[in-house]
This record gives sequence, C-alpha cells and structure tokens, in this order.
Amino acid sequence: MSAYEDLMRFEHDTQALAQVAGRLGWDQETMMPRGAADQRGEEMAAIEGVLHARRIDPRMGDWLAQIDDATLDQVGQAQMRHIRKTYARTMKIPADLATKLARVTSRAQGLWAQARADEDVAAFLPVLEEVVALKREEGKALANGGDVYDAMVDDYEPEMTAAELAAMFDAMRPRLVALRAAVLAAEPPRALSGHFPSEMQMELTRKLAVTFGYDMRHGRVDKAVHPFSSGSGHDVRITTRTNELDPFNCFYSTIHEVGHGCYEQNIDDAYLLTPLGGGVSMGVHESQSRIYENQLGRSRAFTGWLYGQMRDSFGDFGIDSEDEFYRTVNRVHDGYIRTEADEVQYNLHIMLRFDLERALMAGDLQVADLEAAWNDRFSADFGYAVDRPSNGCLQDVHWSVGLFGYFPTYSLGNVYAGCLHEALRKAVPDLDDQLARGETGGATAWLRDNVQRHGGLFRPAEVIERASGRVPGPEPLLTYLEAKFAALYGV
Amino acid sequence: MSAYEDLMRFEHDTQALAQVAGRLGWDQETMMPRGAADQRGEEMAAIEGVLHARRIDPRMGDWLAQIDDATLDQVGQAQMRHIRKTYARTMKIPADLATKLARVTSRAQGLWAQARADEDVAAFLPVLEEVVALKREEGKALANGGDVYDAMVDDYEPEMTAAELAAMFDAMRPRLVALRAAVLAAEPPRALSGHFPSEMQMELTRKLAVTFGYDMRHGRVDKAVHPFSSGSGHDVRITTRTNELDPFNCFYSTIHEVGHGCYEQNIDDAYLLTPLGGGVSMGVHESQSRIYENQLGRSRAFTGWLYGQMRDSFGDFGIDSEDEFYRTVNRVHDGYIRTEADEVQYNLHIMLRFDLERALMAGDLQVADLEAAWNDRFSADFGYAVDRPSNGCLQDVHWSVGLFGYFPTYSLGNVYAGCLHEALRKAVPDLDDQLARGETGGATAWLRDNVQRHGGLFRPAEVIERASGRVPGPEPLLTYLEAKFAALYGV
Repeated sequence: MSAYEDLMRFEHDTQALAQVAGRLGWDQETMMPRGAADQRGEEMAAIEGVLHARRIDPRMGDWLAQIDDATLDQVGQAQMRHIRKTYARTMKIPADLATKLARVTSRAQGLWAQARADEDVAAFLPVLEEVVALKREEGKALANGGDVYDAMVDDYEPEMTAAELAAMFDAMRPRLVALRAAVLAAEPPRALSGHFPSEMQMELTRKLAVTFGYDMRHGRVDKAVHPFSSGSGHDVRITTRTNELDPFNCFYSTIHEVGHGCYEQNIDDAYLLTPLGGGVSMGVHESQSRIYENQLGRSRAFTGWLYGQMRDSFGDFGIDSEDEFYRTVNRVHDGYIRTEADEVQYNLHIMLRFDLERALMAGDLQVADLEAAWNDRFSADFGYAVDRPSNGCLQDVHWSVGLFGYFPTYSLGNVYAGCLHEALRKAVPDLDDQLARGETGGATAWLRDNVQRHGGLFRPAEVIERASGRVPGPEPLLTYLEAKFAALYGV
Repeated sequence: MSAYEDLMRFEHDTQALAQVAGRLGWDQETMMPRGAADQRGEEMAAIEGVLHARRIDPRMGDWLAQIDDATLDQVGQAQMRHIRKTYARTMKIPADLATKLARVTSRAQGLWAQARADEDVAAFLPVLEEVVALKREEGKALANGGDVYDAMVDDYEPEMTAAELAAMFDAMRPRLVALRAAVLAAEPPRALSGHFPSEMQMELTRKLAVTFGYDMRHGRVDKAVHPFSSGSGHDVRITTRTNELDPFNCFYSTIHEVGHGCYEQNIDDAYLLTPLGGGVSMGVHESQSRIYENQLGRSRAFTGWLYGQMRDSFGDFGIDSEDEFYRTVNRVHDGYIRTEADEVQYNLHIMLRFDLERALMAGDLQVADLEAAWNDRFSADFGYAVDRPSNGCLQDVHWSVGLFGYFPTYSLGNVYAGCLHEALRKAVPDLDDQLARGETGGATAWLRDNVQRHGGLFRPAEVIERASGRVPGPEPLLTYLEAKFAALYGV
C-alpha cells in the first residue's frame, strides 16, 4: 500500500473515534443520568487521550514526509490540505500547554456557570485571566510571529483574517444601526398569546425538521437545555428546547439546527469518515443554519404556511392573519441576549464581542476591565444599560471554553447566507410559491448540490464563491435586510 | 511511580474506553437512527481496535513482569488476578484468529436473524460451521492441551468446569422432570385478560425498578427489542419491552435487568474503572437478576403487593384475588422458547443446549446434525415436537455470536440464587412482611452487602459461599422450587 493509503486508513479510524467522542457529547446533553457526570468526565478524557495520541503519532510525520501531494487528484489534495493543517497545528502546541488549557477551561466552565447564576463577575475573572493568558500563549505558538488573533480565527474559519472581518463589520455597522433605529421607532407587531404544550411543539417541530429535508433515517430530534447539532455522515442528531409560552424558540431553533444537520447529512458519501467528511468551516456551517432559519424559515411565504400549521396544532393564539403572523415572527425588539436577537440586531452583538476579544488577545484590554468595556459598548450601541452580568459579559459560555475567534464566524455565516440567498433566488425563481406550500425541496436541493455535498473539498470562501458566483461580502445580506424590514415596518 | 501504579493508571483508561464501547452498544439498541448501522459498525470497530491494542500493549508485559503480586494487599492481588488472566487469554489467541472470529460472527449474526425470520436452518448452517471451527481453534489455543469446552466456560465463569456443571445438571434433571410432570398434570391457573397500554406499563415498570433499589440518578430505563443491562459504576442503563396483552413480560424483564443493574451500581466505588469494578462472572450476575425476578419478584408476598399496583393502574383484568394472581404469575405452561420459560422448566432448556454445544465443541456432534439432535432431545424432554426452527435451534442468538460455554451460566445463576435465597431468608426473618408492603430494601441491602459491593474481589464460587455460608449446589434451589410449586398446584 502507498503511504497515502496507509494514512487514509489511519485517518478513517481517527475520524470514527472522533464521531464516538461526539456521540458521547450528545448523550451527555440528552440521555445521560445526572449522577454519571464524573464517570463521563473520565470516559471523555480517555477517548480524547486516544485521539490526541493518534494526532501526534510518529507515523503521521513519516507519512506526511513521504507523500507528494502534487501526485494526488483533487480530492486527495484536499484531504492532504486538511491533514497537514491539523498535524501542523497539533505539533505547534506544546503538550503541557494543551494539558493546562484542557484543565483550566474545564474548571472555567463550571465557574462561569456558577458566576452567571450568582451574577458575580468577580468570581469568574481570575479563571478567565488564566484562560486568556493560556490562549495568548497558544496563539503565539500558532501564529509563528504573525497576528495572534488571526491564528485563532483560522481555527474556525481557515484563511480568514481579523482585518478582513473588521472591514466587513465596518461596512455593516452604519447600515444596521440606521435600520435598527428606524425599525424600533415604528409600531411594534403584536406578540403571540396563549399556551403551547411542549409535546405538541415537539410534534410540529419534528414535522418542520422533515419539511426542511432533515433525514430521520440518519438523525433524531431530542430536547436539550441548549439546541445543537452533533455528528457527521449517517448519524447526525439535533436537539431543540421548548418554552410553553414561546413556540418560536423551539421551531426556529429546530430549523436552525436542521440547517447544520442537513449540511452534515448531505456531504458526499465518498468522504464518509475522512477529513473532508465534515462541514468546511464554522462560517459556512452557520450560513446553512442561517439561511434555513432566516431567509427561508422567516420568509413571508414560508411563515404563511407555518401559520396554518400552528393554527391546526394550537387553535387561536391571538394572531388573525398570515401578514400579522409574518410581522410577529420577525419582531424586532430590545434585548440583552445575543441568542435571542433578531436578524437586524444580531450582528451588532457579534461586533461588540469581536472588538473586545480581539483587544483581549492583543493585550490592549485587561480582563479586569472587561465588564466595564462591555457595558460601555453595549450602552453606546443599543442605547440602554446592561442591568446585570448574566445579561452582559457573563451571558455566553464561549470565553470560558477558550473559544476566542469563534464569535465572528456567526456574522460571517449571516453574510455567506446573504450571498447564497441572492443566488438561490435567481436559481429557483418560484421559490416563494414553493415555500408558501411548505415545500423547501427546491431550496434545499440547490444548497445540497452547490454547498453541502462538497464537505471539506473547497476552501470556505471558495465554496461560497462557487455557489453564489460572487466574492463573499456583506452587500447581499444588507440589501435583503433593508428591503425586508423596510417593508415589514413601513420605514 | 511503581509499576503497579503505572499499570492501574493504564487500566483505568482501558476500563473507561470499554465503558464507552458499552455506551455505544446501548445507543445502538435504543437511540441510534436506523440508517446509521453501517457507520456505527466502523465506529465500533475503531474503538474495539483501540481496546485490543491496549490489551496487547508491550508495556503490559513489562509491568506484569515487574510486579510481585505477593507484595500487594488483598485488593491489589485481586486486581492482578483479573489483569493477568485477561492478558494471558489475549496473548494466547493469534491476532488473525481474533480478526477472523470478529468478522465471521458479525456476518453470522445477520445470517442467523434472516434464517430465523425465514425458518431456514440450511441458510444458517454454513456460517455456523465456520463459527464452530474457529471457536474450536480458539478453544484449543486457550486450553493448552486441556478441555476445549472448559476453556470456554472459564471465559464466562472463571474456574468452573464442564464436569462440575454436568454433575450439577445430573442432580437437577430427575427432580425437575418429576416436578414438571406433576405440575402440568394439575389444573392450570387462569390467564390475564384485557389490554395493558404500553405507556402505562412503562410508568409502572419504572416504579418497579425504583422499588427494587435501582438508582435512577445513575441509570435509566428505555425500551428495546431485547431487555438488557449495560454499563458499570455510575452509568448503568437497563431496557425492557412491552406487549400490550402481556404486561408480565415487561415487568419481570425489568425486575430481572434491575438485578443485573443493581449489581453494577452497587459495586464499591473504590473499584470504579478498575478490573474489579464489574460483576465477577456471568453466573453470579445471573444470580442477582434471578433472585430479584423469581425468589423475590414472583413470591406470594411481593405479587400480593404487585396485584394492588396493577389494579390501580389497569383496573379489572380478570383476576379476582391475590392468591389467584400469584398462581397466574407463576403459571407453568408448555412452550418452545427458553426466554419465556417458567422457573420449573427453564433449566431443562439450558441442559439441552449445554449437552449439544459441548458435543459440538468436542467434535462429537456435527453442525449438519444439529437440528435433528435438537429436535430429538426436545421431544424427549418436553414430550412434544418442535414445530419450526425459530422455535427450535434457531431461537437463540448465542451461537451465531460465538458464545459457547455461556448457556450453563444461566442455570448456575439459578443455582446460586437458590443458595443466596436460603441464606437471605435466615438473615431477614420478616422478609415476606416487607415484600407484602412492596419493600425490597431488606433483601436488596443484604444482597448489596454480601454479594454486590465486592465486584470482582472474590472468585465466583467464593462470593456465593461467603454470602450463603455453604458450598454452592443445586439443593436449595430444588427444595425451593418443589415447595413453591407443590403448594401452588396442590401436587
């Protein structure tokens, strides 16, 4: 066998073991008995140890030295790009730094959850200092003299830079601020009223998942505290949650996760359990969840169909027409919490985090000053003051886990979704007629064929450019948002 | 660190990974999407590969050579006994034989399931021939010139021999045959009538699980095609099934699996994720499931309480008194299927399998003659002919998986349960008063303290002897069965 074949056999088992670790993660959030947490920690550590040992296995270095990528076909070259990148990254991080980071972030998550519950920023800051210091050390090891924050972004969005992200945000910011101000000055839509039993929400949410092309033969929908998608290939599971006063939380979390899940389910079977067998980047992943959730799921056409479904399930809930329902689904409202933000304001929440975490990593902002910096920026951007830490700098888990450079990929996903949506409208001219009948097949087939099936074959920006026919940028998203919300609010 | 400490650290991770593999097995039978089977096969193979590599890791041999067991305390010596035994077993099996066995038994299970569905013995025999040949080869490698079947029994019941089992069965056979004949000649009890909704069965079955001491903080009860218990320590899950015409199937499967599950949950926490942290043998495991299910769960006292619970849940179901209910629960009836057999006849089903599989392994019975041998023996033992293969030699999965030497441990469990029950009655004189109130705490605490908490600390027969105060033998079981069924049937 050639070195490439040996390497791909080895990678197959590594990928399979990574799937196993993912399955344990799913189990932990959905099925695991509460008292099993400590033992599960040991089990996870054991399998992570196996994965790490494989990533630094001496044979990896030998194979990589022997293989001449130029002799491989397009798929082989793409596989090698992923493998070389992961290997190089792993080898750059000293083993004791990786161990320290794992230990500190594990502790930090617990402290963060407690601090958020107690509204006690001071209880979280010491461990956050440790996390920031270790992440900066890691960033320096990865950056090889380059920009530390760039190196972190690259973990989630290969080849994206902080400078490009900053330029993107600069283009978005004034137009989103103006749109927000106009919309919030207008008459707000009516809110839902009534009671929406959890089991009936789950029934309709499973129907919505299937409506959006999620394959139940290769997946399942369960409840969890936080919605997520887990797994690749033939076993891709999603979760959602229910609030009996707010069924949109359940339905739109589901549609969002179905976007992630379909991406993983629809990757070409030839890439199963290979480095190409997962979504190519966080930004492209988020583009799928966002276009399912927003451009499709919150469209006038689709919400018209959903209104009928909800009337069938729940009877009268205080909304008298499809148009009124469409306005309610797309209600723009004040709020502190990123995950509850509407399409108009969501990216403003991200810009705040992007600027703060970039400053933390550059050493321009100290952890001790984080809360004040957050609160000042929030007041400046949103016009009202943060009332408590759980609505401010303690709201997100990310920093406690060491996820610096991750937040901007959410906005990148929105921007990519804007580009894809523009192209999709051209490719499927009767899209609204289809959506109005609850048919998403035209849209999801286009996304499958142009984005999802490729898995990791192309570079992130390349995937979007090939599918949308344009260099990715915020213009299509902004145009879409301005048109949609101007019409909705008559501004 | 000492070699013993190094070894125990290594074993800790091996045990944790084995738990992960077990969790995947549970998931496969309960939660896994149907279309994920192929991918799961790859995932399981990858983790089994990791486990195998650890079992033959060269460091294992070094540590074992360095450690002088005599310098260790009682627990350390017991750990070493398990580790040395597993290591010696692993090293005796040539790698290519292990690989072949894994491949052939995996294929055989599929062919068996299909053959059973098609009632087509001929379709199964060729692959069974392969399994038998490979198992005999494995047995010879393990036996080192000794008895092949003994070597197989030892895998499931350490230090038990076929000769001892044969002597045990010889003592049981005439008395069970006589008891069976007398009981079947008497008036049969009334059967249940009515419809028992699945969800209500599951509700009551979870109550029964908790009643028998199963800890839901470290476990859960789900539905699966076949009832089983899975996992050790703080994450021990059981399954059951429902038949809306026969709630006893659900309830007594649950109580049986709760016996297995409590054994695993109640092992001393000091042994968690070590070789002592699981049940010590199949026979001792089965003694726990059987005593929970039969001597406790099917007692007059407990069924009196259960009758009230079922009346509360299901209303009238055609049984008018506790006494009549007790007779119905303990109905002795003709039947082909081992897993549906009553206490009187169950061991006769095992003896049939024991003699046939022993002859197969000795080369005294050919696979081609298996069906005829089964059917002849069944007619002779039960007095009526097997009507179709799924009621005969195709009914059990065991041989397709390569489980030869496993069947007798079911009867051994019954025999052990008889010994433990005799001692338990002396230790807890008011046991029936407790059971009649639905309280099993007196019995389960005694079993926990005298059997379960020890995990793998003592040898199997030693556990039973320490707990029951007698050398294990069938007399207490037979005395119990004769007294119980003579009274029940007035014979």
